[in-house]
Amino acid sequence: MRSIKLLIEYDGTHFCGWQRQVEGRTVQEEIEKALEKVIKEPVKIHGAGRTDAGVHALGQTASFHANITVPVDKIPIALNSILPEDISILGASEVDESFHARYAAKGKKYIYQIYNSPLRSPLLRNYAYFVPQPLDIGKMQEAGQYFLGTHDFKGFMASGGSVQDSIRTLYKLDVYFHEKIIKIEVEGNGFLYNMVRIIAGTLVEVGKGKIDPKDIKQIIASGIRDLAGPTAPAQGLYLGEVIY
Amino acid sequence: MRSIKLLIEYDGTHFCGWQRQVEGRTVQEEIEKALEKVIKEPVKIHGAGRTDAGVHALGQTASFHANITVPVDKIPIALNSILPEDISILGASEVDESFHARYAAKGKKYIYQIYNSPLRSPLLRNYAYFVPQPLDIGKMQEAGQYFLGTHDFKGFMASGGSVQDSIRTLYKLDVYFHEKIIKIEVEGNGFLYNMVRIIAGTLVEVGKGKIDPKDIKQIIASGIRDLAGPTAPAQGLYLGEVIY
Repeated sequence: MRSIKLLIEYDGTHFCGWQRQVEGRTVQEEIEKALEKVIKEPVKIHGAGRTDAGVHALGQTASFHANITVPVDKIPIALNSILPEDISILGASEVDESFHARYAAKGKKYIYQIYNSPLRSPLLRNYAYFVPQPLDIGKMQEAGQYFLGTHDFKGFMASGGSVQDSIRTLYKLDVYFHEKIIKIEVEGNGFLYNMVRIIAGTLVEVGKGKIDPKDIKQIIASGIRDLAGPTAPAQGLYLGEVIY
Repeated sequence: MRSIKLLIEYDGTHFCGWQRQVEGRTVQEEIEKALEKVIKEPVKIHGAGRTDAGVHALGQTASFHANITVPVDKIPIALNSILPEDISILGASEVDESFHARYAAKGKKYIYQIYNSPLRSPLLRNYAYFVPQPLDIGKMQEAGQYFLGTHDFKGFMASGGSVQDSIRTLYKLDVYFHEKIIKIEVEGNGFLYNMVRIIAGTLVEVGKGKIDPKDIKQIIASGIRDLAGPTAPAQGLYLGEVIY
């Protein structure tokens, strides 16, 4: 029995998200099916983060225990030859049997991508949030700083999320742009359900001038979901890295 | 009767190319159908370049004559509200009635994108040519310079292309990279059928060490298709700009 950690990239466009479900195509199921073909017995994998339908990953991780005879450095090529084209295993490493991709994670990095131009981009339609109105990036950068540190983020959680503790710490929130693309990079010790998308939606409201950067502090403190901005769409979100 | 020039971006993945044909979805047909809805009569548009299936455009142009009452600056929004999501009209301008997008073009700029990494990228599967072997970019840059100037490019034309004159002038051929992405930017007064994809395929052979940069001069002079590299795949190619 060996314990393996996988590093995974996927295009979330044609998936109903990461987590296996009764109906609908999921990333977890595709990888489990590919592993079963290699190992000749069913395998359950544990992902670090449950991305939603349409959300992409540059550096998702997953762990599993199995009687796998393929040398660890050949696992990516072996799985990629079976997996559909919208998933790629970028790396595999042997880990301690106590390792669990989700519980062992110390933090995560997400990237939220916005296409800011008066007219939509077909090439980015599945890979960025299209915002035609002009955005004040300086204000978005200023607002971003108020999210840093340890806060109760319960106002930045989708209703339906049922965690006991909504306190999280953000280490980094950078807003930068190149031509018409704005990227929001967020790093923290953990994220509530839809938290990054609500932060992105709130920063877009700041960029449009509808929320003042200085009000972010109070919006967080209030814990009221309705005071934050709308949930930005799934296709702009990328799980960038899981930190161990 | 007004004469209009359109600037067009499209994702070529789900198209059988630009040019209208009996069967299969084409960019020309989609735009003509959208224009007909706006103008209430059939319109024929003339594209500057006939891109193949899977080839993308950042700056395709097309011209047409029609009794269109929509103000010219509202044409992009009016058409985009009808067009499918994989096409976007980025601009419209009024031109002289003698203007023809193809015959008036003085040159074109193409970009060919390569993803150079040992393992494939799902996010770029439709937007770059995946080359897993290491490529020597210095050699590719050196080889690129031999294409500059005026040459008979008949060895860099797909068999089946039936032009009388295969002499073309390239003003620019730059190879640059950022992380795992290599871009080849080519600008010239005109291009033969598949010329950019054969140049890209040849530069990849140079990058792999299979063709010496110094041999490019002779390969061009020979005019023999088989001495050049293979035709690189469609999904890496972008029509960047049409120069007037």
